Amino acid sequence: MSLPRIGITLGDPGGIGPEIILKSFAGKFKLPRAQYILFGTHRFLEREEKALGTALTVHGRSVDKTGARGSLEIREIAAPPGAGRRGSSNAESGLASFRYFEEAVAHARRGELDAVVTAPISKAAWSLAGERWKGHTEYLSRYYPGAIMAFWSKPLKVALVSHHVSLRAALRKIKKDALREYFLSLDRSLSRAGKARFEFVVSGLNPHAGEQGLLGREEIDEVGPAVEQAKRLGVRISGPFPPDVVFRNAVGRRDVFVIALYHDQGLIPFKLLAFESGVNVSLGLPFVRTSPDHGTAFDIAGQNRAHPRSMVEAIRLAASLAARP
Amino acid sequence: MSLPRIGITLGDPGGIGPEIILKSFAGKFKLPRAQYILFGTHRFLEREEKALGTALTVHGRSVDKTGARGSLEIREIAAPPGAGRRGSSNAESGLASFRYFEEAVAHARRGELDAVVTAPISKAAWSLAGERWKGHTEYLSRYYPGAIMAFWSKPLKVALVSHHVSLRAALRKIKKDALREYFLSLDRSLSRAGKARFEFVVSGLNPHAGEQGLLGREEIDEVGPAVEQAKRLGVRISGPFPPDVVFRNAVGRRDVFVIALYHDQGLIPFKLLAFESGVNVSLGLPFVRTSPDHGTAFDIAGQNRAHPRSMVEAIRLAASLAARP
Repeated sequence: MSLPRIGITLGDPGGIGPEIILKSFAGKFKLPRAQYILFGTHRFLEREEKALGTALTVHGRSVDKTGARGSLEIREIAAPPGAGRRGSSNAESGLASFRYFEEAVAHARRGELDAVVTAPISKAAWSLAGERWKGHTEYLSRYYPGAIMAFWSKPLKVALVSHHVSLRAALRKIKKDALREYFLSLDRSLSRAGKARFEFVVSGLNPHAGEQGLLGREEIDEVGPAVEQAKRLGVRISGPFPPDVVFRNAVGRRDVFVIALYHDQGLIPFKLLAFESGVNVSLGLPFVRTSPDHGTAFDIAGQNRAHPRSMVEAIRLAASLAARP
Repeated sequence: MSLPRIGITLGDPGGIGPEIILKSFAGKFKLPRAQYILFGTHRFLEREEKALGTALTVHGRSVDKTGARGSLEIREIAAPPGAGRRGSSNAESGLASFRYFEEAVAHARRGELDAVVTAPISKAAWSLAGERWKGHTEYLSRYYPGAIMAFWSKPLKVALVSHHVSLRAALRKIKKDALREYFLSLDRSLSRAGKARFEFVVSGLNPHAGEQGLLGREEIDEVGPAVEQAKRLGVRISGPFPPDVVFRNAVGRRDVFVIALYHDQGLIPFKLLAFESGVNVSLGLPFVRTSPDHGTAFDIAGQNRAHPRSMVEAIRLAASLAARP
């Protein structure tokens, strides 16, 4: 069995990306064995190494490239002068972080990576740099329209049926056939990764999941039939359940994924329970993509105050989902 | 200053209502000084007293009616034979619990009570008894169309702009003028009760509160202007904020009330944080109404397993909101 190949992007060089990556690899955390390839610019890492008085290692040893017990390689990507300035978004940093991401995704698309872990970027900086993509997710959704946005933590796992659209538009997406395909893709995406089969529980849309049609008919007309069809096709799935019960009941159940019908239905409970330790994961792609569930944190960048917890979890999850059985 | 007069309804006599009321008054809990009037049928209380080997007391003393240091009086209301059967809903119990509630509300409407605390009823039993009201809230909303449903707990306080309607219908209710009146009524209702002024934070409707109109316009067209108008009229209010942030940020802030724009937006986080210890409260009425945030629990009724925590909190909150300054 060969080691999984995991790309890591440095993120916005003026944010906490370089610091949390350095801390993740500084030896204190147990990272899975893998071939790690870091897409970034060396000078931003060096700056952090000097500031923190530490150096990149893998499994407690200086970086080696043998691949035998895991390795970390740095893929140097040029960043324009002015990139890496602390404190706020700028076009140069935006351009740099976009290049890291674009290059890592290109490798993954060619099958040279099994997973990509993305450190936080600034959407404002991408916009200043003239990039037309709003963020990582929008870029991936363009290539892979069936990309699924999911959120992973110990207490709770959530997959979103829709994400960055208005609530009105999200309601229009609650359609039987599209939901069934979504359920099948989510199940396939996780089983292909060799994970133990997950159980999926689907939230309703309306209060009390519609109360037999009294408080809305989407559960009867769309969600329920889609769940039944997916079940007949072999997916371990049930619902729709009352939204104010289904998340609470899933807390702490390791093999349960809650399917939320719109952005905030899933992210209100997720962010309450897994603030700053959760992992954002894109499923339904030919490769795995994870990222820490926080932003660039410009306000604390360069102060040795950023905690790499969520980044470490993102790396672990990427390796776990990328490992072939 | 006279003691607040607090009505308590026994709830469904086949459920845990009599048990949690008895436990609340059995002396272990510190209840506020008040004139308590219990609307129920004595034989159901006696059954619990025998089973639990305890008797109703107030402040550790047997029930007295002097009113000097608080008192508990039982207002006997007839229940049909067959009421109080354990284990499931029946028409006789439904009829009894409806009468308790109707009588308590009639007293409150005549100004003879400052607050009503309702023990859990079975909606199915009310329906079997031929009552046309779906529950406590629907009954009160008929008399008081501006009734506000709120949820109270130590970690989080939430008020709902709409409750038992489909999500589609809830979206149609997001209108500037109605929202402004709602904010004013909520503020008035709490200040009249002599509480320290609350700060209200309003959730947005769309992901990221609409992201400057990119993900929906309700924040710009309706919610934002309503908040500004209420602010100009003296309400301490701000928002709209991103839904997946506003609840998390309010956790633990005692004087903050989050205003949720629809049922599950507020109840998903509330039930995660305050399961079985929260209190349901109706505001915007001429009297206060509270109730424990759980159901009749037919499955454990009569087994001495019910915890009165939420009932005790409901009584305390009723007294605190009913106390005139």
